[in-house]
Amino acid sequence: MAVHELPVLDQPEVVACCAPLASTLLSEPDAETLARQFAALGDPVRLRLVSLLATAEGGAVCACDLVQPAGRSQGTVSSHLAKLREAGIVVSEKRGRNVWYAVVPAALENLRGALAPR
Amino acid sequence: MAVHELPVLDQPEVVACCAPLASTLLSEPDAETLARQFAALGDPVRLRLVSLLATAEGGAVCACDLVQPAGRSQGTVSSHLAKLREAGIVVSEKRGRNVWYAVVPAALENLRGALAPR
Repeated sequence: MAVHELPVLDQPEVVACCAPLASTLLSEPDAETLARQFAALGDPVRLRLVSLLATAEGGAVCACDLVQPAGRSQGTVSSHLAKLREAGIVVSEKRGRNVWYAVVPAALENLRGALAPR
Repeated sequence: MAVHELPVLDQPEVVACCAPLASTLLSEPDAETLARQFAALGDPVRLRLVSLLATAEGGAVCACDLVQPAGRSQGTVSSHLAKLREAGIVVSEKRGRNVWYAVVPAALENLRGALAPR
């Protein structure tokens, strides 16, 4: 029997931004960029969705499988996933009738860097 | 001549929360706690204020000295500082007629931990 493995999602190129907040004064454009990403994480449902994606075996999850564990309606989950995608925290791919999502680890790493001590 | 040094601000005890988002599924209460802090960082003016405090020599800055570099009115700066304080990202202390602020490095370190790879 042929095993049909879904490929992992292509990861986007993440432009590194910014120096640690504690090392040099953050410029206004860099502050805009970072704030958009922190704001995307500033919601408990979105944080749980990121955690669901980041802990998933294989790294990608169908949106249809996120509704039940997120404990929210499909519409709410879709809207939160869209906000995470716009901020570059997750990527998505249409597979048949479903949309699959995966975390962008480089985006989280970039935010970690901004929070590093001086 | 006696040199009168202002003491650094007392740092609060920061309760460690949470395991990395990518290591175990974030619980709902932990998600609430973390989301509040990420939301506090989800604004460019607040991020610049954190950066101003974190890069300051001596670690504490009078709110009166944050208005000009933040490029916002005193009222706006005060309101952003209050949000950061409520989220535990900064601490404040009244000194005479002024309020001084300092970053809570342990709070930023805690958020870094949440963003760590699995």
